[in-house]
Amino acid sequence: MSGVAPDRLSLNTATVKEKWGLAQAIDGCQRHGLGGIAPWRDVLQDMGVAKAARAIRNADLTVTGLCRGGWYTAEGALTQAVIDDNRRAVDEAAEIGAECLVMVVGGLPEGSRDLEGARAIVEEGLASTLEYARESGVKVAIEPLHPMYAGDRACVNTLGQALDICDRLGAGIGVAADVYHIWWDPDVKPQMARAGKDRLMAFHICDWLVPTRDLLTDRGMMGDGVIDIPGLRAAAEAAGFDGLCEVEIFSALNWWKRDPDEVLQIIVERGRSAC
Amino acid sequence: MSGVAPDRLSLNTATVKEKWGLAQAIDGCQRHGLGGIAPWRDVLQDMGVAKAARAIRNADLTVTGLCRGGWYTAEGALTQAVIDDNRRAVDEAAEIGAECLVMVVGGLPEGSRDLEGARAIVEEGLASTLEYARESGVKVAIEPLHPMYAGDRACVNTLGQALDICDRLGAGIGVAADVYHIWWDPDVKPQMARAGKDRLMAFHICDWLVPTRDLLTDRGMMGDGVIDIPGLRAAAEAAGFDGLCEVEIFSALNWWKRDPDEVLQIIVERGRSAC
Repeated sequence: MSGVAPDRLSLNTATVKEKWGLAQAIDGCQRHGLGGIAPWRDVLQDMGVAKAARAIRNADLTVTGLCRGGWYTAEGALTQAVIDDNRRAVDEAAEIGAECLVMVVGGLPEGSRDLEGARAIVEEGLASTLEYARESGVKVAIEPLHPMYAGDRACVNTLGQALDICDRLGAGIGVAADVYHIWWDPDVKPQMARAGKDRLMAFHICDWLVPTRDLLTDRGMMGDGVIDIPGLRAAAEAAGFDGLCEVEIFSALNWWKRDPDEVLQIIVERGRSAC
Repeated sequence: MSGVAPDRLSLNTATVKEKWGLAQAIDGCQRHGLGGIAPWRDVLQDMGVAKAARAIRNADLTVTGLCRGGWYTAEGALTQAVIDDNRRAVDEAAEIGAECLVMVVGGLPEGSRDLEGARAIVEEGLASTLEYARESGVKVAIEPLHPMYAGDRACVNTLGQALDICDRLGAGIGVAADVYHIWWDPDVKPQMARAGKDRLMAFHICDWLVPTRDLLTDRGMMGDGVIDIPGLRAAAEAAGFDGLCEVEIFSALNWWKRDPDEVLQIIVERGRSAC
């Protein structure tokens, strides 16, 4: 509980997305002594997957996840296009050696109010991706998003709900636990224990600001908000999680505007003091 | 499932708070044929509780709730001032014949990250208020708020969590189910069934807009968002709820700016077409 050393931190590239591409983020992680990186697919594809894989290997960075697969409800029903895109995400995750492919599953289809129907589409999609992922040894991590995104981004909203899906789908699928999305849940710690080492595939950190001025892009630096990050990290570790803490901060109003080297310096400080 | 007739609707005064006091809201409900009203304490006190009670009785309106008691974490620990204020809320609810006193329980105390501690304060506070409320026959309804308010407004965030508290505290306490706060919950329908007729004390409606531009004051008119209101109403009624549907819309960006008579006219239309 004495904080997180830099080499136990991973940088999610969304945190520096306004200023850095993937090559710069890899260099930045090395410069600041971070142990891992988690690219989004857009910056990965911009750099080129093979080239990125080599650069990450050369930098000796752990890839804590590839963001993101999912979005199964994008076309109203599960289409071949969506299935195929998720297969490409699996291929990319395999090529960069990602510890998991993080799934943001999608919200309600356009014009729909059928949340149960959306959830059925999502589970069908996850089953399809999982079958493909098993063949290449890629682990699939469902990221439950905060309930305020149920309409437009992800209709899987708690660890418990995600683990129910995992129970039904079997081996190779687990959860990505992001404190921003799950800190409020009275059941969060028991559900981490339920997930256990095999299914707790990623642990993401940032903070919940009070007030929060925007539903998507006003997330805080660790220590600036109200989440008990050390308590949640302790629960994850008690459940068997021994991976890196991945820092993912969506912050149009603050951190995205700053020099990423300053952001990384503060991440390193806050890893020690607030995590 | 053929919609809700006007006399089965209740107006929460927050919906017209920028333009109308309680006397005007009572007149408005009569003019538009609504069956009930749910005042907030500020407008109730502005009018005078005794005078308001008479006016509501004369207008033959059901009082579906008094908003709101709670806020137990306001002073960091449960203080006599907070307990006393909640007793006054119980007295006011009794005087106006409210079907329940709606509890917004409070979020994290200033500077705290101890959510479990906040929840303990809340339960202690509810137990205290409940004891007092039982003497005067006032029912206490915990309103779980959306998880996005866990930090600053209410650390009770699901029906299941609220009902766990009710189970521990015994008779006279139940839940106020507001579709805005609970629609995303995969467990919402089973939890309504678990609440049952005695504990499902209020049913509030509005809609979740996509996008939502403000965490507090961008709620939608029924039919303008993505909540399956008829489906949730059916679940509430299947659980035994036979009260009025209370319309509570926080909308600084739209409905609060409009002529309340127009707002009530649209509420009546949407009651039939979207609820």
